[in-house]
Order: sequence, then structure tokens, then C-alpha cells
Amino acid sequence: MTTVHKYIIYVLLLIILIDRYLYIYINMAEKGKIGIIGSGLIGQSWAMLFASARYNVTIYDINLELVNTACEKIKTELKMMEKNGILRGNITAEQQIDLIKGVTNLEEVVEGTILIQECIPEVLSLKQQLYDQIDKIVGSQTIISSSTSTFLPSALSEKMEHRNQLIVSHPVNPPYFVPLVEIVPSEWTEDWVIKKTRAIMEEIKQSPVTLAKEVPGFALNRIQYAILNECWHLVNDGVLNVKDVDTVMSEGLGMRYAFLGPLETAHLNAEGFVNYTERYSNSMYGVCQQFKPSPKFEGPLVKEIGDQLNSNTPLEDLPKRRLWRDQSLIKLSQLKKYNNY
Amino acid sequence: MTTVHKYIIYVLLLIILIDRYLYIYINMAEKGKIGIIGSGLIGQSWAMLFASARYNVTIYDINLELVNTACEKIKTELKMMEKNGILRGNITAEQQIDLIKGVTNLEEVVEGTILIQECIPEVLSLKQQLYDQIDKIVGSQTIISSSTSTFLPSALSEKMEHRNQLIVSHPVNPPYFVPLVEIVPSEWTEDWVIKKTRAIMEEIKQSPVTLAKEVPGFALNRIQYAILNECWHLVNDGVLNVKDVDTVMSEGLGMRYAFLGPLETAHLNAEGFVNYTERYSNSMYGVCQQFKPSPKFEGPLVKEIGDQLNSNTPLEDLPKRRLWRDQSLIKLSQLKKYNNY
Repeated sequence: MTTVHKYIIYVLLLIILIDRYLYIYINMAEKGKIGIIGSGLIGQSWAMLFASARYNVTIYDINLELVNTACEKIKTELKMMEKNGILRGNITAEQQIDLIKGVTNLEEVVEGTILIQECIPEVLSLKQQLYDQIDKIVGSQTIISSSTSTFLPSALSEKMEHRNQLIVSHPVNPPYFVPLVEIVPSEWTEDWVIKKTRAIMEEIKQSPVTLAKEVPGFALNRIQYAILNECWHLVNDGVLNVKDVDTVMSEGLGMRYAFLGPLETAHLNAEGFVNYTERYSNSMYGVCQQFKPSPKFEGPLVKEIGDQLNSNTPLEDLPKRRLWRDQSLIKLSQLKKYNNY
Repeated sequence: MTTVHKYIIYVLLLIILIDRYLYIYINMAEKGKIGIIGSGLIGQSWAMLFASARYNVTIYDINLELVNTACEKIKTELKMMEKNGILRGNITAEQQIDLIKGVTNLEEVVEGTILIQECIPEVLSLKQQLYDQIDKIVGSQTIISSSTSTFLPSALSEKMEHRNQLIVSHPVNPPYFVPLVEIVPSEWTEDWVIKKTRAIMEEIKQSPVTLAKEVPGFALNRIQYAILNECWHLVNDGVLNVKDVDTVMSEGLGMRYAFLGPLETAHLNAEGFVNYTERYSNSMYGVCQQFKPSPKFEGPLVKEIGDQLNSNTPLEDLPKRRLWRDQSLIKLSQLKKYNNY
């Protein structure tokens, strides 16, 4: 072996060594702090998602009992998921648990935090009161992110001094297995807040979409309510019973939607979307002309639909049925993970 | 062993023997004849479904080449599915293939048939012309079932002598893996036709729903068009781009719909459906008041949506993407099969 060869080997070994240290440095470096306000189911899910990407997570609630219960639940949940091979991230459950701590002092959750994820009950006055408190102690570099499904970010933030740091990040239940997050800025949310929120959601391996502007119901609930309107009318007009309306989705339309959105579904159901509208737009428009105004979801039909649902899933079986739903979603999310196009 | 014991043993052996023969007789008995008119993809799917339940299937088309091509495709498909362990029914692919034959003579497909499943192109005049021919040769015990997604059964049958035997059985693509069938009677469809059609669809292990009366779009397309309306507006109003609209469904709402219909989803998202409306009906109604009229699916946005879809799935890749969709649906249908509540 010549001296030149030796030098080449030394240089290559050095490069490998540097790469290793860089990798460890980048991956194990302090990721910074995320604050969760509200220790219910959604708060617990967010905490697990952020910890899976190695953020230091602080969960706040109004008393120690709530906070401790949440931390205990998270601990059990993470260990159970590790055991079942469905834990997210590339560190152990124990390491993730170590990253999560509970507090009852609001300053502790706000101070030096990259992003605060608020998950308190959907009561506007409660949220505004909380934001008023946060407003007094928050720095200018902290993102204030709400999990609300109901309120526009402008309604939450209009009176805040730091209103340009507030944004909505609306998750879907259960967030650990259904990755969509709707990111909704108000007209005064700053651009860096929108971009950084999206980047963080991508980093924790959720699937964010960014709305260009706020609209009531955001996107998911607008689509969901359009569906519920039509289901209501199909039952109300005596066309189908409740079970059969649900079957139309779960054994038909909905199976495609587990993989494809409505627009790509149309794209594939003809020779592209343009061809789809050439073939079907007249008949689509004709059908839609028969649509009735949105119902108020009140009156005797509420009870009738409730009774029909109860006959298959009685109220006392809801927890059991939700567990089945979540386990189904876990299996689907595993299927989708290894189902890349 | 006493004589009594011996007699008991003889009687038990006899019972077992009779049961065996009864089982073989019931299961292997002649199941009767199903006719398929139209040998395209939907016709081929129906043929495979009926053969899997051991019906004798006759496929008709206007020339021998079409019919032979269809039979060859079915043969390949059934063998491929057997190889992959996803063949339906409890007889072999070879036995199923033996049950399917192609013809070009309409009498042969109509005569002595339990149910005729029509799958010709969605052109009203073509269908009416076919039904006019069938009307002249059909017996009074044959169900005339249309695969149409577009036309009301009354429009197809109003001029027929045998109009009370016509019904719509609308499948979802691909029917072999998406089990929903919408059964839609006209006001003059006889009760035995409705009941027998549903029983046959259940027998071939599809998931039929029976509409109490005909409505434009039936149920599936009414729901699908309500969704497409809202997706169109979200893009048209500049709220989301096409990819993100689709993500809202495929990574969010749609994952639940692979297992649960919209009404049961609501039932589980609160303490039952009644509680769901108590919590959300006001905010739902408020969001729905913002809905815009149904679009005509025309103008420059058609091309814009098409272009955005093409950038992810170009027209030349549609067959490949459809294959991926179908394989995804196969995996989901396997998952659902072993996912009983």
C-alpha cells in the first residue's frame, strides 16, 4: 500500500467520524420547549406527538391533580404503544416520558417556549380570558397556537397585544393516528408564525394544510357539515334509515377517502378531472339543484336518529366502540405507512 | 355395551351422514342463471361476484371479440386473485371460470334468468333501446337490474310492459373490493323484486342498502356531490389548493369514514348523537349559512384544478395510480374483514 493510499484511508475515516458526530449533535441537540395548556385527551395527544420529536414538553392545567393524572395516562399510553410497536419517533418511550413534565404555574409554560398549544374547553370567554393572561407574559418569539375547531383565530386574538403571534392548529381526533392538522391564520398572523407552525407540524410527522385565510368551520368541518346536511335530509325524507346512510359511506364512498381526496377521486374516475366534468357536470348540477337548505339539527328527528344509533351502539357502549374506532385507525395508519405510491 | 347404547350410536351416525349429504346438496345444488349485459369492467366485476356464489353467469355483448376479451380478462383476474389469497367464495378459481360463459345472442342471456344485470354505457337512449328489446322476450319472474349511476329506474322503465320488474343496483368501483350496492326501486317496482334483489346481493357478500324511493343521484352521489361542491368553493375562494383540499379528506376526515358513517361518527364524537346536536347544532348551522350555491363545474377553474391534479398524477399515470388505489382498497377490505367489532 502506497503512502497516497494510506492518506486516502485516513481522510475517509475522518469524514465518517465527523459525520457521526454531526448526526448525533443534530439529533440529540436540545430541541427547545413546547407548552401545552389543558391536560385533557387532546392535550395529552399533543404532548406525546411533540415528545416523539424530542421536544421538551410542559403540560399546564389549573390544579396538580389534573396534571398528574394526565402525566400518568401519557406514561401508560406511551409504554403500551412501545410494546405494540406503534410508538412514534426514534427514541424510547422512557426517553419520551422524561421529556414531559406537568406544571400549574402559567408562567412556567409560557416562558422561553417556542410554541404554546392551547387545548382548553370550547368556550370563547374561557379562551379569551386565558389569552388575556398569556398576552401579559408572553415573549415576541413564541407562537400561540389554539386547538379550537369552532372559533376563528381573529375572534380569539383581536384584543391581544401579541395577536400577530396567534394561529389555529386544529387536530383531528385521535391526533396520534389521524395526522391532519388545519393551520388557520387570521389576517394579522405574521408570516413567520404560519411558516414555523407548519414546519413544526411536519417535523412531528403530522400532515398540515395551511388555509390562506380564515373561514368558519375551516375546511374539515365545512366538508363534514355538508355531508351531515345531506345525511340528515336522506333520513328526514324517508329515503334511507340511519344504518343504511352510514353504510353508504363506510362500505362505499369512505373506503376510497381513506386514501384519496374527493378531487383526485374524480380525476381517477374519468380520464382526468377535465374529462370528469365534461362527462358529469350536467348531471351533478342537476342533482345539486334538488338539495334542500341546511337543517337546524333540531326537532323530533334528532331523537329518532339518536334512537336508531343507540340500537346499534348504546350510550353505555360508546367507550368500547371508540376503542374499536381507534384500533381501526391505528391499523389503517400502519397500512398507509407502508402503502406508498 | 348394551343394545340401547348401540342403537344410540347408529342413530347418531345416521344423523351425521344425513347432515353431510344435506350440506353438499344445499351447497352444490344448481344456483340458477344470472345474465350480465355489457362486458366492460363493471360487467366483468359483476360476473366474478355472481360466480363466486356459484351462479351460472352468462355475459352478453354485441360482438364475439368483446365477449371473448372479457372472459379472458376474468380468467386471468380470478387466477391472480386465487394466487394472492383474495379470491371470494368457497370454490376454486377454475370452478368459478367454468361457471362463466359469453354469448352474443340477447335471448340466450334473458331466457330462464333469475336476474339480468345491465352494465352498458350511460346513454339513456341506448339503455331504453336495450330495455325495449328485453321487454319483448323476458319472462315474468326475471329481475331486470341496471348498474346505472345516473338514471332513475322510472326513467328507464316507464314505457316497458315489464316495468314492475326493473330496479337499479348501483355498484361502486371496484365492486369486487368496495361492497356497497345501492338498490333503488321505482314507484312501480314490485315488492318481491326489491326483496329478492337485496337477498341476492347479500348472498354474493356485497353490502346492499335499499332506498325507499328513487331520488336523483341516489344516496352515494348526493353525498359525493355535496362534498365536491364544498371542495370546489374552497379552491375557488382561494382558501386551500387542490392537494391540501384532498389531504383534509385522505389524512383526516376520510380515515374515519373507512370504518364509520357520518352519523355514527357524530354519535362517537360526543356522548351520543343527541348530545352532539346539543353541543354543535348552533355552530353547524352557522357554518352552513355561509355555504354558497352549487357550482356548475365549468369555466377556468376546471382547467386549474385539472392542472394541479396533473402535476401530481399526470394523465399518462392514471392507470398506474388506479392500480395503486385498487391495491389499497384490497388491503383495506382485508383489514375490515378481520376487524369486526
